[in-house]
Amino acid sequence: MSAIDEGDDVVLYLDNRRTYMVRVEAGKQFHTHKGFVELGDLIGKPFGSPVVSSLGASFYALRPLIRDRIIKTERRTQVLYPKDIGYLLQQLDISSGSRVVEAGTGSGALTMALADSVRPEGRIYSYEINPAFQAVARGNIERASLMAYVELKEGDVTEGIEEKNVDAVVLDLATPWIVVPHASDALAGGGIFASFSPTIEQVMKTVAALREHPFIEVDTVELILRHITVAENRTRPQTQMLGHSGYITTSRKILK
Amino acid sequence: MSAIDEGDDVVLYLDNRRTYMVRVEAGKQFHTHKGFVELGDLIGKPFGSPVVSSLGASFYALRPLIRDRIIKTERRTQVLYPKDIGYLLQQLDISSGSRVVEAGTGSGALTMALADSVRPEGRIYSYEINPAFQAVARGNIERASLMAYVELKEGDVTEGIEEKNVDAVVLDLATPWIVVPHASDALAGGGIFASFSPTIEQVMKTVAALREHPFIEVDTVELILRHITVAENRTRPQTQMLGHSGYITTSRKILK
Amino acid sequence: MSAIDEGDDVVLYLDNRRTYMVRVEAGKQFHTHKGFVELGDLIGKPFGSPVVSSLGASFYALRPLIRDRIIKTERRTQVLYPKDIGYLLQQLDISSGSRVVEAGTGSGALTMALADSVRPEGRIYSYEINPAFQAVARGNIERASLMAYVELKEGDVTEGIEEKNVDAVVLDLATPWIVVPHASDALAGGGIFASFSPTIEQVMKTVAALREHPFIEVDTVELILRHITVAENRTRPQTQMLGHSGYITTSRKILK
Amino acid sequence: MSAIDEGDDVVLYLDNRRTYMVRVEAGKQFHTHKGFVELGDLIGKPFGSPVVSSLGASFYALRPLIRDRIIKTERRTQVLYPKDIGYLLQQLDISSGSRVVEAGTGSGALTMALADSVRPEGRIYSYEINPAFQAVARGNIERASLMAYVELKEGDVTEGIEEKNVDAVVLDLATPWIVVPHASDALAGGGIFASFSPTIEQVMKTVAALREHPFIEVDTVELILRHITVAENRTRPQTQMLGHSGYITTSRKILK
Repeated sequence: MSAIDEGDDVVLYLDNRRTYMVRVEAGKQFHTHKGFVELGDLIGKPFGSPVVSSLGASFYALRPLIRDRIIKTERRTQVLYPKDIGYLLQQLDISSGSRVVEAGTGSGALTMALADSVRPEGRIYSYEINPAFQAVARGNIERASLMAYVELKEGDVTEGIEEKNVDAVVLDLATPWIVVPHASDALAGGGIFASFSPTIEQVMKTVAALREHPFIEVDTVELILRHITVAENRTRPQTQMLGHSGYITTSRKILK
Repeated sequence: MSAIDEGDDVVLYLDNRRTYMVRVEAGKQFHTHKGFVELGDLIGKPFGSPVVSSLGASFYALRPLIRDRIIKTERRTQVLYPKDIGYLLQQLDISSGSRVVEAGTGSGALTMALADSVRPEGRIYSYEINPAFQAVARGNIERASLMAYVELKEGDVTEGIEEKNVDAVVLDLATPWIVVPHASDALAGGGIFASFSPTIEQVMKTVAALREHPFIEVDTVELILRHITVAENRTRPQTQMLGHSGYITTSRKILK
Repeated sequence: MSAIDEGDDVVLYLDNRRTYMVRVEAGKQFHTHKGFVELGDLIGKPFGSPVVSSLGASFYALRPLIRDRIIKTERRTQVLYPKDIGYLLQQLDISSGSRVVEAGTGSGALTMALADSVRPEGRIYSYEINPAFQAVARGNIERASLMAYVELKEGDVTEGIEEKNVDAVVLDLATPWIVVPHASDALAGGGIFASFSPTIEQVMKTVAALREHPFIEVDTVELILRHITVAENRTRPQTQMLGHSGYITTSRKILK
Repeated sequence: MSAIDEGDDVVLYLDNRRTYMVRVEAGKQFHTHKGFVELGDLIGKPFGSPVVSSLGASFYALRPLIRDRIIKTERRTQVLYPKDIGYLLQQLDISSGSRVVEAGTGSGALTMALADSVRPEGRIYSYEINPAFQAVARGNIERASLMAYVELKEGDVTEGIEEKNVDAVVLDLATPWIVVPHASDALAGGGIFASFSPTIEQVMKTVAALREHPFIEVDTVELILRHITVAENRTRPQTQMLGHSGYITTSRKILK
């Protein structure tokens, strides 16, 4: 059973709407409108333990999940939703040891999920043209202790990809079709290409580009996630719903 | 660049509808209606390479992905769809080193995806009450070279879970609500519970059971996957669609 | 070409977000933050005509559609969405001459759509237990000039339906399953039953009641409506979406 | 209570999968694999009545609904689904007295639904370029006793619409954008335009054409219909589902 150490991040959970990610430091207090929590009191307790605030409110101290980190990420860009990240990771077929090119890095949300999937033996090469975004991403990835598996590259992926023989290339940028030839050069035989795009015009151009290069199994999907309220005599899909985030196009490189 | 070895599985790709998973053996031929492929010819070529059949048809020899293995799995049970597996893996937050309890094993489709996620340092404890299913699953998992990360347990998970302090419990069985108390005992603080069920009555009972045990963040979702046809002047969601596979309920264990 | 008369309702359209339903009166002004419109100026103009406000803003004077009236309805209750009303009207197979029982009346939104479908020869018998709702509905229906086709009945439909041999019964109330036996008594052979319910528990009870009475072709559906943004290089389903309004159960009465 | 007459169409219902539309004639028999039904025996019975076949099977004799006629229609073309027809009728805001232009007629499925909505005082002007389709449509519409409200026009609607000041124009054809200027000429102020198209490219062109003409409230939607299985411990959306039929674009004509 892993215990909380000084310097760990924890998620303090009050209820489903109110959670806070904080770093544990002896002598430091975390203040909420429900009173403050003595962070030092958490040291040595197992993750999942309750802690009572100065005003008597019960919090639980949880180990941050990757999806907690994504939600709490300091962000300057639109961040992929967990439904799309889950599908991307599954389609990319990456696991420990995989070498993956990503662009753009954005706030590092997908980068963290990718890095967690390929550790301890793999590596993520993540391109970002905007130095300000890259700085934010570095902070997020370091805080998640995942920088050892990531190489942040400041560069324009529409001009080329330096890596060769990679297992997967994953794109979340405005003009993925321009990157298709570079992805073709970078991928090993059988390697996976994946691209996330909000609009159907982006998809049309990307699919057309894939068909002009040695790619097979071109497939475009859209994932719709419905949350269901489950409670006696009130069970039903929820009224509010995300109508669309984007399309995911996947394909597989072959050798000619 | 990894090359094909004798004894490797390859997927022989003819087109998007016709793919075949075969084991490479020198001197052996794989026969199709488009002629036969000399499997020994593949040895030493990189994955992704073309190979021409005796009748002149071009195949490509691909490394099998986990999702290829799931689709090609010898199965005696209903198998989870990639859309649901991707979401489950994302929600379970597992990666190298995670210890996960699964029930039931079924044909081992989800077991393979879980094992690939937790290797090289984690372990999947997979319960199955039906020895015939377990034998099928063992064959599938061995063929995928993932048995080193899996412990197949013949037993009834509705009577208890032997492991303690596991990171996640994932259920795909008829009566998940009976397993909720055992999952609560088995999970470490902050560990993740996930259950896949086709019917809403199963969901109602499972959610009610979770609310009677120390679980937070109970959430039920349904994922709808639409494939999009993308071709000039024919772009549209596909006519045929899977209407429903099942609901996924997730939750998180706390310590009291 | 029909012209606007004194006393007509018109919808003043400024843009897709700003429309106002007003009654045309000579000498009266309608004030908006874009200046006022002289309502008397509209008299004699064809519907669809432009009118310029005192501050130079262009409005268009439209004949109110039933769906405009539904959206602008003075309401004290949840109102059915157009997607659900369209499906209900199609399934109910009503047209000029049909006799239809409705409960509850609510704000009269569905009542107006029903009355417009059965005029000039049919009739809607609409039950409502709450006199305050009924008064609101009467105002809305009168304003739409549809009261000639509607009989508003203050009564509890769970205790019985007075009409016999009606073509259709349509329910939008909390406990439709209690009304099923009364609907069976009221419907002519082959008549249509339809019920709208937000929760799956309501649906389960209603379907069980239908199966205990002489009904065939019991069918439950859910309609999901997606609005699509269509604009060059920005075409995509909209981000915000209504996730769920309710389930519609339909069935058909037979004689034994 | 309406009784069955000689010459009436009835739907003979055996179960949810097996229904037959037949014309009642004294002395004639309708043969099924469950024995034959003496059609003359139905004369004078109320609609909804049971009738027993020569082999003892129970059928019910139902009055054909418009949606029964659409499903049973002799068709040579793709026919609109009830979900889409319901939404179209609701958006078109048509009722007794409306004058509506339709193109193309196809098998007359939508024509029948439109005619039933506008009778007894309205009229449908339905254009079809293919005489063979028109002949089929005429048979279907006559059988439904709705020809009194329909004018079938053999002509190419892409070259112009003869009618003026109509309440609505509804298109189900390959190139709706070419018809937009003609629809603009034909519609009265405030009249409704609606178009059904399977592909997004058709939608893009149609919306662009609407924006170049005096139309407001341009809206494109897609309707997804899910059938729900409702049965104790088996309640769930159905596995098989229609993934897509088409997009519906609606708009409203203004005067300039």
